[in-house]
Amino acid sequence: MKSHIGLIGIGVMGENLVLNMESKGFRVSVFDQSGARLDQFGSTRAAGKRIQCCHSVQALIDSLALPRKIMLMVPAGQAVDDVIALLLPLLENGDIVIDGGNSHFPDTSRRVQMLEDRGLLYVGVGVSGGEEGALLGPSLMPGGSAAAWDSVKPIFQAIAAKVDGVACCEWIGEEGAGHFVKMVHNGIEYGDMQLICEVYDVMRKLLGMTAAEMHEVFKVWSESELKSYLIEITRDILAVRDEDGLPLLDRILDKAGQKGTGKWAVTTALDVAVPLTLITESVFARVLSAMKDERLVASALLPGPVPEFSADRRAFIDALGKALYAAKLISYTQGYQLMQAAGKAFSWNLNYGGIASIWRGGCIIRSVFLGRIQAAFARKPDLDNLLLDPFFRESIGSTQQGLRHVLTQAIGNGIPVPALSSALAYYDGYRCANLPANLLQAQRDFFGAHQYERTDKARGTYFHTNWTGRGGDTASSLYSV
Amino acid sequence: MKSHIGLIGIGVMGENLVLNMESKGFRVSVFDQSGARLDQFGSTRAAGKRIQCCHSVQALIDSLALPRKIMLMVPAGQAVDDVIALLLPLLENGDIVIDGGNSHFPDTSRRVQMLEDRGLLYVGVGVSGGEEGALLGPSLMPGGSAAAWDSVKPIFQAIAAKVDGVACCEWIGEEGAGHFVKMVHNGIEYGDMQLICEVYDVMRKLLGMTAAEMHEVFKVWSESELKSYLIEITRDILAVRDEDGLPLLDRILDKAGQKGTGKWAVTTALDVAVPLTLITESVFARVLSAMKDERLVASALLPGPVPEFSADRRAFIDALGKALYAAKLISYTQGYQLMQAAGKAFSWNLNYGGIASIWRGGCIIRSVFLGRIQAAFARKPDLDNLLLDPFFRESIGSTQQGLRHVLTQAIGNGIPVPALSSALAYYDGYRCANLPANLLQAQRDFFGAHQYERTDKARGTYFHTNWTGRGGDTASSLYSV
Repeated sequence: MKSHIGLIGIGVMGENLVLNMESKGFRVSVFDQSGARLDQFGSTRAAGKRIQCCHSVQALIDSLALPRKIMLMVPAGQAVDDVIALLLPLLENGDIVIDGGNSHFPDTSRRVQMLEDRGLLYVGVGVSGGEEGALLGPSLMPGGSAAAWDSVKPIFQAIAAKVDGVACCEWIGEEGAGHFVKMVHNGIEYGDMQLICEVYDVMRKLLGMTAAEMHEVFKVWSESELKSYLIEITRDILAVRDEDGLPLLDRILDKAGQKGTGKWAVTTALDVAVPLTLITESVFARVLSAMKDERLVASALLPGPVPEFSADRRAFIDALGKALYAAKLISYTQGYQLMQAAGKAFSWNLNYGGIASIWRGGCIIRSVFLGRIQAAFARKPDLDNLLLDPFFRESIGSTQQGLRHVLTQAIGNGIPVPALSSALAYYDGYRCANLPANLLQAQRDFFGAHQYERTDKARGTYFHTNWTGRGGDTASSLYSV
Repeated sequence: MKSHIGLIGIGVMGENLVLNMESKGFRVSVFDQSGARLDQFGSTRAAGKRIQCCHSVQALIDSLALPRKIMLMVPAGQAVDDVIALLLPLLENGDIVIDGGNSHFPDTSRRVQMLEDRGLLYVGVGVSGGEEGALLGPSLMPGGSAAAWDSVKPIFQAIAAKVDGVACCEWIGEEGAGHFVKMVHNGIEYGDMQLICEVYDVMRKLLGMTAAEMHEVFKVWSESELKSYLIEITRDILAVRDEDGLPLLDRILDKAGQKGTGKWAVTTALDVAVPLTLITESVFARVLSAMKDERLVASALLPGPVPEFSADRRAFIDALGKALYAAKLISYTQGYQLMQAAGKAFSWNLNYGGIASIWRGGCIIRSVFLGRIQAAFARKPDLDNLLLDPFFRESIGSTQQGLRHVLTQAIGNGIPVPALSSALAYYDGYRCANLPANLLQAQRDFFGAHQYERTDKARGTYFHTNWTGRGGDTASSLYSV
């Protein structure tokens, strides 16, 4: 009996996806370039299951029903192109290659074109949920060759997480849209994680709270509007003890890693001109955390205030929850701005409410909050900015003072809150009718003859002032700053 | 008589550079693809001068002494490659092509290689100073084919600005190092401008100051440690009146333009892992300012505090000056971190003190402050981070409370201060021995088996905890978030 699908690359994600598929009744063939890893999988977790370990790519190909569906779970980058090159001569018209890694979306767009030119189909699918999600139900964001959707849909929707009986997997869109949306997901994940870290830092450093006390706060939050997977795992992490009974968290080194998707979100935001400030600060916060040795040196040399808290603790913890929520409203607003701008730039028909729906389960950022976003787009499918939706307006209205309160305390007490700060700066900037960019334009016209528009003249008419009385009258057509 | 140098592209910068060269005794040939523009220049500003207008590239080439030096002042990007392609068949061994535009440094590195492969020399030179600088003495940052330096040095150092008799032009380094350093200059310029704008915004909105009152403050600052070109032109801008006698600044639309070099600085920072937060927020602030129509809609819908100031005005204006200076210390620290990281990444031998020296005059960011940076690197050429230099430590120590005070007021009163906020967040993060990234690493290990290091074990040893008691024990070797 032929397998329904083949999978190449047996890392932790690949293994768990295979087991998930098999548990839903699908026969799966697997191949890995490491025969040892393949044998190990075959003799342990895959043993006795409808999983066929193939020791060559040809064997894998031969084991699959037509049209073949081959999913790659290999590292993003050259490895994907290498495996595609191996597969190309062995595949037949209509076969489907699926990339389930964290590929950069322009690479996926390029590969879709390349395979379609050869009569094959290509799907780039964002997979979120980590190792547990892969096993028990991930959130899946497939895009690429639309003609492949009918073939892969039964498998993908079967293994995906379900919320209210709806699979967290829908067709995202053209070209690399699936991996693009996954990239935005990961950027938002960076933001959510950084915000939680900042709030945790304020709790421990300003309020002097223990892990057990913070566990209780996160327990309350995990039953509130803040309810989300990341709040829940933070609650659980705060309860885990090391062998000697002390909090394990206190033994973990504060050096964060990252693998690139957050960075891609930032560069894409720069390309399509979206102020993705919160995610950017979160990426840079990881970079700064990695400079551990430099920070140790600096901490002994650079002055700052000693944290001291004298206000009402319960009220402040309440403000922390509000600050977290307000910043989350801003972060998702920025992430959606990025998707909307990219949708326009790349001519993709993205379903914004549908994306929120997919993210409600399975993935790392799953939360009750995503239902709010889905509802906002249901109310107004062409919503320009999430903050303008009635629910968002009401929510930011009732939480912004909490955010201001927390920032004031953290800033006065020397606790770094880059993501929370950027959230408020964006909010106050976005709702600002008159930013000081009039001065900036005056400066640019002063030194570079860049010209400016006037508030009392029609837009699109440009003026140059000879501010110094010296220099030429030529307006800049070339020099750029 | 042959000309000393030729120039292609007569925009405002090109014109002024030509006039500057001619005024120093050099004969200059010029070409522009627009014959009309060429004739206009020839019959007006170039009239009666040792400037030869050539109506073809061949005529330009024929008019030049050997080795030919041809400077391009054309828009960055394809236009540079197009002009190079025109020139290549007409040039001889040892001729020098110079790109004086704002080219992206990897393009310059590529072109250096391409021309050297053909026996030619290529120089990418960053030119700063705007139209007035080009005419009266710019700051010049040349890099590329080192063999070209002796030929171009007399012209470049003659036309460059002088500070204490020293020309603001020194050889920067290999490949695209000249354009790279110009890119960092522009990024810092973005930061300086944004910081001044934020301080101006707080003055007008929180203190209700008039343009005339702010003019007085900037006048005082332009004689202080803050003394710099941008502070001086802000002072002057604040004094300029429209035809009806009201401040011209108040009539300028708050929609900032940008042309890409700030964005490049950010993406390079992401590539070489430097937390360039302040410049990044400045780039995004311009993006947000450009969303004028959206902001007008949002300003009517989104709530925030009404600015109200009740403290000591004089003391607060003093704090504003301190905040500006503290943030400037941070911004230049980040910019230098970027140069140091890139120097390492690209194997360039950059002269960090020398770069500060070049920037002391001619360019947009010129200031007394740059002498402080030069001195810091003179004290310790391998200084890791500017903040660790004694002068910087003392300066940030005496100004950081001013920054905290200003932020607290701006945040409480709803005035957006993204760059000032990011400055303090970086400072408090950099001097932080223990960031909350321990929680972030715990989260990553929880959902993605990414592993973590421990504070009580040797670095480089990685641990994974099976936080849930479910899932596999496989550590992630592949899946990335």
